[in-house]
Amino acid sequence: MTSEVPQADRQGEAVDLVVEAGGAHLPRLLEAVEARLREVAAAPGGAVGGWAEGTIAAGGKRLRPLLVLLAAGAVTRGQDALVRAAACVELVHAATLVHDDVLDAAPLRRGRPTVWAAAGREAATVTGDHLFARAFSELAANDDAEQVRVLSRASSALAEGELLQRSDAWDTAVTPERYLRRCELKTARLFEAACVLGELAAAREPGLGPYGRRIGLAFQILDDILDVSGPAERTGKLRGTDLLDGTVTLPLILAGLEDLDLHPGITPAQAERICDRIVATGALERARARALSLVVEAKEMLPGDLTGAQRRALLLVADGVVERYA
Amino acid sequence: MTSEVPQADRQGEAVDLVVEAGGAHLPRLLEAVEARLREVAAAPGGAVGGWAEGTIAAGGKRLRPLLVLLAAGAVTRGQDALVRAAACVELVHAATLVHDDVLDAAPLRRGRPTVWAAAGREAATVTGDHLFARAFSELAANDDAEQVRVLSRASSALAEGELLQRSDAWDTAVTPERYLRRCELKTARLFEAACVLGELAAAREPGLGPYGRRIGLAFQILDDILDVSGPAERTGKLRGTDLLDGTVTLPLILAGLEDLDLHPGITPAQAERICDRIVATGALERARARALSLVVEAKEMLPGDLTGAQRRALLLVADGVVERYA
Repeated sequence: MTSEVPQADRQGEAVDLVVEAGGAHLPRLLEAVEARLREVAAAPGGAVGGWAEGTIAAGGKRLRPLLVLLAAGAVTRGQDALVRAAACVELVHAATLVHDDVLDAAPLRRGRPTVWAAAGREAATVTGDHLFARAFSELAANDDAEQVRVLSRASSALAEGELLQRSDAWDTAVTPERYLRRCELKTARLFEAACVLGELAAAREPGLGPYGRRIGLAFQILDDILDVSGPAERTGKLRGTDLLDGTVTLPLILAGLEDLDLHPGITPAQAERICDRIVATGALERARARALSLVVEAKEMLPGDLTGAQRRALLLVADGVVERYA
Repeated sequence: MTSEVPQADRQGEAVDLVVEAGGAHLPRLLEAVEARLREVAAAPGGAVGGWAEGTIAAGGKRLRPLLVLLAAGAVTRGQDALVRAAACVELVHAATLVHDDVLDAAPLRRGRPTVWAAAGREAATVTGDHLFARAFSELAANDDAEQVRVLSRASSALAEGELLQRSDAWDTAVTPERYLRRCELKTARLFEAACVLGELAAAREPGLGPYGRRIGLAFQILDDILDVSGPAERTGKLRGTDLLDGTVTLPLILAGLEDLDLHPGITPAQAERICDRIVATGALERARARALSLVVEAKEMLPGDLTGAQRRALLLVADGVVERYA
C-alpha cells in the first residue's frame, strides 16, 4: 500500500541540496550525529536499549538535527558539542513519536512496526522515557545550563501541545487560532529550539529562533495538508488519518463544512470522503497559502550576520518545508 | 477501606526523627524542596502544568529528596543547588509513577485519583513526559554535567527495570537473583543516585552510593512484603495487588508454592488466598531477613568521614526502610 522508496529518494534529494549549499563540513557532521544517535539510544543495553536503537535506526528526515547544524554556521571548534545538540533534539522528537504511537495504537511508522506494535505499551512507554532521559544527558555534556533549559521548555511545550490536540479531538468548532497555538506547542517550539541550540553550541548570539518557529508552523500545516491531499502512494500513509483520530486541522477548519459529522468510530472510507469534500472547497490552497506566508516571514526574519552558505541553506530548508510530498 | 491518616502520621513521625537527628537546617531545606517541586511542576501553566502540580501536591514520603539532603551533610553554601538536586530526584520518581499508573490502569494513588483515572492516558503520558523534562532542566541549572549523567543513568535503569518486571509478569519460575536485579534497576539505582547527587551538589567526594543502593533494595523488598502481609487498613492498599498484576516478588519466590496457578484475570479474593498461603510458609520472615541483612550491609558501608549528625540520620533512614507499615 505504501511506497517508501520514491518518498525517501525525494527527501534525500532535498537534503542533498541543502547540504551542498550549507558547506563541505555538513556531510561529516550529519554522519557523526547519526552515529551518536545510535550509540546514545543503545547505551544502556538490555531490551530498552534495543527498542530505542531500533526506533532511531528506522530513520526519519533528521530535519531538526540539520537545523541545529545549519544554525551553528561554519564551526571549526567545538564540533562535539554541536553534534550532541543535534542528537538531543532528534532524541526528544523520537521519544514523543514512540509515546504518540502508544496513544494512537499505531501499527507502523516509517514502514516498520512501532515499538507499541512489536513489544506492547509497556515497552513503548519506557522506551520513550529512556529516549527523553538520554536526550538531556547528552545535552548536559555541553556544560551549558541554558541549552538544557531550551530543550526542556520545548519538551514541556510538546507535552502541552499533544494534550491540547487530544482535548480538542472531534471538536469541529476549533478556531484557526487555537489550531495554530496547538501547532506552535506541538511542532514549532522544537524547531525553534533546534535553531537556538545550534547557535548556543557554536557560541553565537541566538537570532534564528523566530525563523525556526515559523518554519515549524509551516511544516505542521503542510503535514496536515498532505494528510488530506494524499495520495497515499506519495505520502506513505492513508488519506484522512487525522480524521480517524478526531484531529481537526487547518484544511478542515478552512473548508467550513457546516453539516460535517465527525465522530469516534469513523471509517477510513468515510474519512476519505470527507477529504474529497475538503479538497472540493479549495481549503487546501488556502491552507497552503498560510504555510507559504509563514515561510516568507521566516525568510525575512533571517538575521543579517549569516554567512552566504548558511543563508542559502536556511532558505532552501524553508522552501523545502512546504515543497514536499511526504 | 483505606486508612490514610494513621499511615501518614506514622510516616511523619519517622521523618521527624530523621530530621531531628540530621540537623537544624533540614526542615527549612525540606520546605524549600517542596516549594520548588510545586513551582517546577506547575511551571508551563496549562493543563499539563495543572496535572503535574496535582501529582506533586498529592504528597509522598519524599524519602529520595531527604536522602539527597542528608548525603550533602551540613551545607552552608550552595543550598539552592542542593534543593534543585533534591527536587529533580522526586520529579523523576513522580514521572515514573504517573506512567506506571497508566500501564497499571490504577484508579488511586495516595488516596487521590491518578492522572490516568481523572484525565485519561493521553494526559497522564504527557504529564509524565513533562515531569521528566523538568527534572533534567532543574538539575541542569546546577551547571554540573556529572549530576545530569547520574540522574539520566538512573532514569534509564528505571525504564529497564520496569520493562523487566513486565516481561517477567506471571512467570512464577523467576529466580531470586532476577528479582533482585529488577529491584536494583527499578528502585535501588534512584536511591543510589539521590545519595550521589547530594554529595556532588555539596561538592563532596561521592561515597554514599553503595549505602543508597542497598537501602533502595531493602525498601523494595519491604514494599513487596507489605503487599502480601497487609493489612489493608495499615498499608492503604489491598493485599495481593502485585499478584493481580502478575508481578512475582520475593515473598512468593521464597514461599516455593509448587502447585501455584498464577494467571491473568486472577480475582482479588484469589490473590488474598495466595497471600495467606505465602504467609503460612514463613516466606515473609525470610524475605524480611534478606531486607534486614541489606540494611546491615548499608550501615557498614557508610563512609568514615561523615559528621555525627549525618551518620545518625542515615542510620535512622536505613532502619526506617524496613521498620515501616506503609
